Amino acid sequence: MSPQDAIAGNATAYLADAALLGTEVVERVRIDIGADGRITAVQRDAQHADERLAGLVVPGIANVHSHAFQRAMAGLAERAGPEGDTFWRWREVMYRFLATLGPEEVQAIAAQLYVECLLQGYTTVGEFHYLHNAPDGSSYAEPAELALRVAAAAEAAGIGLTLLPVLYRFGGFGAAPPGAGQRRFLLDPDAYATLCERLARHVPIGLAPHSLRAVAPDDLARVAALADALGPSTPLHIHAAEQRREVEDCVAWSGARPIAWLLDHAPLGPRWCVVHATHSDADECRRLAASGAIAGLCQTTEANLGDGIFSLRPYLDAGGRFGIGSDSNVSTSPVEELRWLEYVRRLQGEARNVTESRTGASVAAGLLARAAAGGAQALGREAGAIAPGRRADLVVLDADHPVLAGRKGTSLLDAWVFSGNVTPVRHVMVAGCWVVRHGTHRRGQEIEAAFVRTMRRLGALM
Amino acid sequence: MSPQDAIAGNATAYLADAALLGTEVVERVRIDIGADGRITAVQRDAQHADERLAGLVVPGIANVHSHAFQRAMAGLAERAGPEGDTFWRWREVMYRFLATLGPEEVQAIAAQLYVECLLQGYTTVGEFHYLHNAPDGSSYAEPAELALRVAAAAEAAGIGLTLLPVLYRFGGFGAAPPGAGQRRFLLDPDAYATLCERLARHVPIGLAPHSLRAVAPDDLARVAALADALGPSTPLHIHAAEQRREVEDCVAWSGARPIAWLLDHAPLGPRWCVVHATHSDADECRRLAASGAIAGLCQTTEANLGDGIFSLRPYLDAGGRFGIGSDSNVSTSPVEELRWLEYVRRLQGEARNVTESRTGASVAAGLLARAAAGGAQALGREAGAIAPGRRADLVVLDADHPVLAGRKGTSLLDAWVFSGNVTPVRHVMVAGCWVVRHGTHRRGQEIEAAFVRTMRRLGALM
Repeated sequence: MSPQDAIAGNATAYLADAALLGTEVVERVRIDIGADGRITAVQRDAQHADERLAGLVVPGIANVHSHAFQRAMAGLAERAGPEGDTFWRWREVMYRFLATLGPEEVQAIAAQLYVECLLQGYTTVGEFHYLHNAPDGSSYAEPAELALRVAAAAEAAGIGLTLLPVLYRFGGFGAAPPGAGQRRFLLDPDAYATLCERLARHVPIGLAPHSLRAVAPDDLARVAALADALGPSTPLHIHAAEQRREVEDCVAWSGARPIAWLLDHAPLGPRWCVVHATHSDADECRRLAASGAIAGLCQTTEANLGDGIFSLRPYLDAGGRFGIGSDSNVSTSPVEELRWLEYVRRLQGEARNVTESRTGASVAAGLLARAAAGGAQALGREAGAIAPGRRADLVVLDADHPVLAGRKGTSLLDAWVFSGNVTPVRHVMVAGCWVVRHGTHRRGQEIEAAFVRTMRRLGALM
Repeated sequence: MSPQDAIAGNATAYLADAALLGTEVVERVRIDIGADGRITAVQRDAQHADERLAGLVVPGIANVHSHAFQRAMAGLAERAGPEGDTFWRWREVMYRFLATLGPEEVQAIAAQLYVECLLQGYTTVGEFHYLHNAPDGSSYAEPAELALRVAAAAEAAGIGLTLLPVLYRFGGFGAAPPGAGQRRFLLDPDAYATLCERLARHVPIGLAPHSLRAVAPDDLARVAALADALGPSTPLHIHAAEQRREVEDCVAWSGARPIAWLLDHAPLGPRWCVVHATHSDADECRRLAASGAIAGLCQTTEANLGDGIFSLRPYLDAGGRFGIGSDSNVSTSPVEELRWLEYVRRLQGEARNVTESRTGASVAAGLLARAAAGGAQALGREAGAIAPGRRADLVVLDADHPVLAGRKGTSLLDAWVFSGNVTPVRHVMVAGCWVVRHGTHRRGQEIEAAFVRTMRRLGALM
């Protein structure tokens, strides 16, 4: 630790060696931060500040879609099944795993997950929270028990949280009855509204009708009205078109594909995040882009689950916006998400640098800036860029790290996203507070110890 | 560091908490190691040994295909090009980058690469070495200068090395003249034979005619004869069918696709490693599998370069063997290679657990065991399994690491391969010697410092 790079945590004006402003890397950028954790001023070619930030400062990335508890089942469903093994068998494993989780486990797992996310460069998480009830399906004495545990985990980790309580009522399209594996998720609309109103007093929330499989059209209208009542910018998240079978079932039920149905009936707009959108046809891609909604792309989970490949380039060409999500948390690295978002399409199209249309532009800078801005929009958080008025969610990359050494300008981002297996993330600030310094999370040791104890206990049960 | 887990480095009998034997994880395995660095005995249900190895011991993975110097250009070719940007433009960037490299740079880069590989669980590398000449194309005073630098780097890092000097003569099929960018690679067959004979006195080597683009049929026959003279098990490596254009050019030249041509003329057999083999048709897949050759799959590089997708499952179903390679070194993690080898095919087929045919079997254990055994075969190294007679190339995974905590048996491998972004590799042994202990490489600091200095110098030139 050099004296120039003290990260004392009490400065209000930082001088970054370099910073990502838009899609451009600019040298000597002064970033002033107010007492409320927002950026008050950004100045190029600056000379003085309270403290130097050695390295490249980038906006923190939002993780728009997480199911925190699934962090603890990573690796449990990786057994060969009969020919044609799919998502749906994975879901059975997940339902069985759920039975082992109580409030303490949920909190310990979520806290570890959020620390891991911060260490890799995520600064905010959208927790798509559908685990409401006790294992037998009854309500906890405190109906918000598990949601509050997730919020406590986020607070301990110091990650920004947009809690997305989920409405889950049915087992399939057309109000099919839920299965036993789904009983921990079920709330009636009144209980859901009460839960959301209660949580909104504690933490930033958005509303999440689970999917067109799990709610009826009436529920969707009611959730949208509830969102309006909570505030006009309340985010709305929904899973859609993740699996081909879901598309077929939706067509059988309504005559329309899921994204098309949502565009016609929800209706989708900038406060919506459509998670996955994997099986969007050309018309849906174009219309989704035009709606201003965010596509919540979860590349590593979609790969793990064998979902299929979203038509990203046509969507971007139509002006579509996206965020990235760690979803099942098999990966907690924004770099792995972005790298493979691009790589999968290189393999598919047998071409390179496919998600960026401006010749000569840095693919990584484009992906990072889009994911940061789109992710912030999806979570209703004024962040996602280094600019006045935005929250100071900042990640400092160590330019002397072996992954980045010798690079300059946007080449630093090219090297970060497209090489290496060790993170060069050095410091992480959330809303003006340092939570990771010199690669170490302020409460990482204690949170990891609790997680390892929890995992051993769960391991003994399984 | 607990006293039970001292890794003093002088034990000859270790008691592993668990070890991967074949595709099975067995508890309490005693591994005896002789003074020559080979395993002399493996005993199940053991009680005593000189020292305990806390965690899971797996065979070290061979990295069958590396171009070490490319580690230093990771991220330099990630700029959007005109529509249809491909491998061939990447190659132009690579040729320009080469001009900056002298012997010192090559050694510093290779040493850092090999340390990174060891820390992630690779224990041997096949260095496909085609950088022979000075930047102006003339021979160095010591014609083996750069090859010896690579060997020195491997020795400093302590990684197992099979050096694969490359014969490169032409710029395209039909003995097309080489371009200026290729002058550092060119050797005439006599100089090549002299180089190989010289190197074989220092390090284990294999021979590598670069590709059907870069050598003529006569050269291939001469290289095979040279391999025979060096010893009947001398490995032979060749790039083939990486890019669709290469297949088309080969058909135009010979009437046959590259793998088919090699099967008919080389002829391929167990001492061959066919690197990439991406564009193999069904008949080539079946015949390549039957030949006993190793397919050298380099998933992260093939993704980065937009090569295309090898038909892995049909190849495995036909009994095909494979190894993995870090190739351009955009990734140095065997886990990222194996994870995405499986994931890419899940996305392509919209199914899960696609590379393992035995219902209920661990996909990760199958992939690891195949890659370890196939990789060892490709490099002519008696290793790749924990068994008597094999070299003691061992990786110890920390079962208490957050990535693995609570897992048992092959589920430890499922969690290692299919989750996490921080490595749980704790100790690494190469041929009986510990080179990584408690996550730290014995010379990592000094090697990293030299690399960072080198990268800064190269950065200033570009």
